[in-house]
Amino acid sequence: MYITPPLIDFALAPLTATPRARAIAELSAVDWAACGIAGFEEGTFGRWARGQAAAGVSPTFAGETLTGPAAALVNATLSHALDFDDTHFAHIGHPSVAIIAAVLAAKPKDWTAFTEAVLVGFESSIRIGVWLGRDHYQRGFHQTATAGAFGACLGAARAMNLTPDQTQHALGLCASMASGLKAQFGTMGKPLNAGLAARAGLEAAQWAWGGMTGAPDGLDAFGTAIGAERDKAALDGLGATWQVEALSYKFHACCHGLHATLEALSQDTGNAAFDRITIETHPRWMTVCNQPDPQTGLEAKFSYRHVAAMAMLGVSTGDIGSFTDDAAQDAGLVGARSKVDVFVMDDLSETQARVTVERGAKHQVFTHDLAHPQPIEDLDQKLRVKTASLIGQGRSSDLWASRDTHDLDAFITAAFQTTTPQKRASIEG
Amino acid sequence: MYITPPLIDFALAPLTATPRARAIAELSAVDWAACGIAGFEEGTFGRWARGQAAAGVSPTFAGETLTGPAAALVNATLSHALDFDDTHFAHIGHPSVAIIAAVLAAKPKDWTAFTEAVLVGFESSIRIGVWLGRDHYQRGFHQTATAGAFGACLGAARAMNLTPDQTQHALGLCASMASGLKAQFGTMGKPLNAGLAARAGLEAAQWAWGGMTGAPDGLDAFGTAIGAERDKAALDGLGATWQVEALSYKFHACCHGLHATLEALSQDTGNAAFDRITIETHPRWMTVCNQPDPQTGLEAKFSYRHVAAMAMLGVSTGDIGSFTDDAAQDAGLVGARSKVDVFVMDDLSETQARVTVERGAKHQVFTHDLAHPQPIEDLDQKLRVKTASLIGQGRSSDLWASRDTHDLDAFITAAFQTTTPQKRASIEG
Repeated sequence: MYITPPLIDFALAPLTATPRARAIAELSAVDWAACGIAGFEEGTFGRWARGQAAAGVSPTFAGETLTGPAAALVNATLSHALDFDDTHFAHIGHPSVAIIAAVLAAKPKDWTAFTEAVLVGFESSIRIGVWLGRDHYQRGFHQTATAGAFGACLGAARAMNLTPDQTQHALGLCASMASGLKAQFGTMGKPLNAGLAARAGLEAAQWAWGGMTGAPDGLDAFGTAIGAERDKAALDGLGATWQVEALSYKFHACCHGLHATLEALSQDTGNAAFDRITIETHPRWMTVCNQPDPQTGLEAKFSYRHVAAMAMLGVSTGDIGSFTDDAAQDAGLVGARSKVDVFVMDDLSETQARVTVERGAKHQVFTHDLAHPQPIEDLDQKLRVKTASLIGQGRSSDLWASRDTHDLDAFITAAFQTTTPQKRASIEG
Repeated sequence: MYITPPLIDFALAPLTATPRARAIAELSAVDWAACGIAGFEEGTFGRWARGQAAAGVSPTFAGETLTGPAAALVNATLSHALDFDDTHFAHIGHPSVAIIAAVLAAKPKDWTAFTEAVLVGFESSIRIGVWLGRDHYQRGFHQTATAGAFGACLGAARAMNLTPDQTQHALGLCASMASGLKAQFGTMGKPLNAGLAARAGLEAAQWAWGGMTGAPDGLDAFGTAIGAERDKAALDGLGATWQVEALSYKFHACCHGLHATLEALSQDTGNAAFDRITIETHPRWMTVCNQPDPQTGLEAKFSYRHVAAMAMLGVSTGDIGSFTDDAAQDAGLVGARSKVDVFVMDDLSETQARVTVERGAKHQVFTHDLAHPQPIEDLDQKLRVKTASLIGQGRSSDLWASRDTHDLDAFITAAFQTTTPQKRASIEG
């Protein structure tokens, strides 16, 4: 770390600016204000600026209505806060969080318009993620944020019935907002990345709807600027074959990179005692979820060794309440994880894991592949158990009823109005 | 253009989704909502979300008060709308627009706190821009947006008196928001880039102040992800020498890349008739401001040939009213610009231009270098003329009086409350 510390020192210390530098700051302030006044009065941007204050409102999980972009930001961030949402492994991104939040704030007219806009956003984000390339993720970009922003933009464009021209401008504007780094992993910046993507996509669509223009091929300009692979085959079969069919849900409250390992370990029917566990996984996950010695609940969600210890000691990995700071430092779990080793294996795909459990001379090998598609009925059943565990049976039932009856208003009510005012006040407190 | 059109078609056409794809969208909607409800109630992000609704307000050029981030977005965009604000050529960025907008919305306590935070933002953005490298701009990034976001962040951090830890988190969060492409040039996306940078910097500082955490060295992660040069010498002498001293103001209402050429041409004392003009300039400007045959006022602001024709025919390049769509297609100007040729010369720096005016057998060569610093007194005088021309003598005098008396409240009043309600209403239309 050589660039950040001196800048922080410089920014906060007493200034030793030269007289010319100080004079420049003052001249700029006046020049800036004159440019701003005249820029507003010229009218083109003035109309856009006046529109910002007149924006409508959308509901949020936090119980407050906010402007559409702020609601998209808040809802996407909150839904990624627990790292418990869905994942697609073709590009490695979390489609729902950014895209559903943006589409809802774009106010689709009914359930069909809502789910079709979501599908457009999902499929587009996955395809764009594949187009950006595997290297994009490895170099430090969070696909949930980058590919997610473009998916959110196209989903919002559909929900808002934009014209092709408006959609082109929207994608162009979105290209100046698509961003978000994997360096946020382990901090609050990770869920925020999803929020930023949702807001970027929605704002780009709203601004294009209002007449703002953007780069004609912003997507390609973005890919060029960041040096992405830009795999032209990524759009093959678009509209005919659906990558979204392979979406993977989370039934463990930790990083999706750990799930194949946990599914493999769940096949072990032995008791809690073991001598050694060896986890073999794909090299990609090493920079994502191999915290060897987690000290916080958040870090524990990104630790092969810790979740293996939880599974062996019978601590539920499906319960978010199991991932606390105390649990991360629990003597029993720390002891168990000291007997877990993690290795990378090039013969495994990113969705596969191989786990060897040693008890004395007995070695048992378990494998799992998340890419193996599960029937919709199985997913439906598992998700009903999961959501009831997350938010209680009553609120969970309301959500499922809205889906079963295809009632968008009921869905919005169930999503955004079920937390009690008391609970909200206690969080704010 | 191969990636954008098929995605637009896909997004807007009737969907031919498979039953499994449609089922996945519905399952995701329910799963997403449960994750969002539980994510809010867990509290960590819930407190942040509740804070978004409770944010204070800041004034804007548009006459509406908005939340701080929205005000930063609007004010930075509006002040860059005319492309008439200042430029620094070390990294090629417009420092004032993003940084002053962010610092004002961060509510500095007085004139000194304001100008010192602005100086921190200016100097940081220039240094960070140099650190990102010249290649960063050439590959398609708009330094006003990327380096500008980090400068806005550090300026806001100072104005808000953040701690070093908070400032580190702010820079980390800002790294997920710093973005903005040169592909927006010639569209409304260019001024918007400045707005996005201002908002990113301010939000990062506000969120870090509120306890949000981010990447420990986000700046370096950003530089790595985008493949920036990361010139370690960029911070040499930080706090002792001031790059901001070389800030360049605009006295022509067009792209700064054209100004050396116009200053060179202003030395020509001949009459409007000429046979040929040859402009020699640095190769970097070819992708920025060499529109050969502009059809709109906006395009004319990025055209060597057009502004040379204006200068020769006595059309004011300092008056923003000279850059209209009609003027871009004016027969006299189109005829004159047909006699202008533009060449790149490697022996010229980015701030230099060499212009040859041919009248019969008489060839005269004029040169200018914007990097040659002008005395503060000269800049002050020229800016007083410019601002009076832009916003009228009365409003201009109010701005200068606030600067001369170091009165921040008076500056804010003069900047944001001088447009009449009638004018505002007419813009909203």
